[in-house]
Amino acid sequence: MTAPFFSPSFQNQLEQLLIWRRDVRHFRTTPLPTPVLDELLETACLAPSVGLSEPWRFVLVNDSRRRDAIRQNFMRSNTQELEGREGKDAERYARLKLAGLDDAPHHIAVFCETNPKQGRGLGRATMPQTTTWSAVMAIHTFWLAATARSVGVGWVSILNPQEAHAALSVEPNWQFLAYLCVGFPEQHANTPELERRGWEQRNPARRRWIQR
Amino acid sequence: MTAPFFSPSFQNQLEQLLIWRRDVRHFRTTPLPTPVLDELLETACLAPSVGLSEPWRFVLVNDSRRRDAIRQNFMRSNTQELEGREGKDAERYARLKLAGLDDAPHHIAVFCETNPKQGRGLGRATMPQTTTWSAVMAIHTFWLAATARSVGVGWVSILNPQEAHAALSVEPNWQFLAYLCVGFPEQHANTPELERRGWEQRNPARRRWIQR
Repeated sequence: MTAPFFSPSFQNQLEQLLIWRRDVRHFRTTPLPTPVLDELLETACLAPSVGLSEPWRFVLVNDSRRRDAIRQNFMRSNTQELEGREGKDAERYARLKLAGLDDAPHHIAVFCETNPKQGRGLGRATMPQTTTWSAVMAIHTFWLAATARSVGVGWVSILNPQEAHAALSVEPNWQFLAYLCVGFPEQHANTPELERRGWEQRNPARRRWIQR
Repeated sequence: MTAPFFSPSFQNQLEQLLIWRRDVRHFRTTPLPTPVLDELLETACLAPSVGLSEPWRFVLVNDSRRRDAIRQNFMRSNTQELEGREGKDAERYARLKLAGLDDAPHHIAVFCETNPKQGRGLGRATMPQTTTWSAVMAIHTFWLAATARSVGVGWVSILNPQEAHAALSVEPNWQFLAYLCVGFPEQHANTPELERRGWEQRNPARRRWIQR
């Protein structure tokens, strides 16, 4: 088969997409136009998966009581994280806005079915976590497709995963991976919010490869 | 800031990129032109990371004894996986080619530093695996950037991770995630090799979302 030709211009735009993809915590409340969310989720399912197991499970969370339970979970977890910090570290942490749960119009929880029949076990005998990692790549695919459509995504991980699982009443064997806030971002930026707010910055040493 | 405008044409090409990204096991032996591998790895480092921790560690494996050790590891792990299967399942498994270790000109091992100082712990108190998942997204970013340049990537997971770690003499606290075969693919295809060879196919049920 002849693959499509990806031009240098496309390659540059892909680089720009990666540069402008952000973890968004400031959302406009306007919902996405109707088909967009479905289209983004369809695209996410093009992600690689070990043995072609497609272990990702996307849950659209609309019920306000369930959303509240997640918000409470986040607030408790965030308070605990803050209480474990001292002095300037605690001050700086307290100033960060770490989730867009109040404003984001769409909430998507992502789970992994960790031992699916699909794929017939191929490729995960010695490294069973590859199933989880496949679902993580689906999240990342969703994120990039969203960015290409000017849609923002924020991955909330400051959550107790057992409580998040319980709040969403899903299959017992599903592993909670992520709670995504989705919507149009308040602003765009080509640097991480954590860098702009002085929390952390990229390290040039991470762009040197080890030789063996 | 004004984000770049990603046109519908770019969005379509991104979709095509995701459709044509393959797990490649058949490589030409020609090395990549000199700057390409570095450029792809630089691009990979644009991946999201929890707390901006950049926990990915890329190891270029060129030493032939180390490559041999990985090849032996794969052969042992693959034989074990085959021995655990019976009848038709074993026959089908035996017919699959599951790694391009012999022909791929470039071998890259990917590790995660699971408890890095960088990021100052943000976002991983309740979900420490988010560090590993950040490195997984860097692998996926590498994979997509490679596909955009007609470069093939095959993720070998049929490996004993402890033995792979030992064979590559890296820091004790690095977690082995993936061994990537990289080079120009023998052929291009818009369907997974596992599907073309009758092992597994995509499941339409995976493209239905759960509502909560």
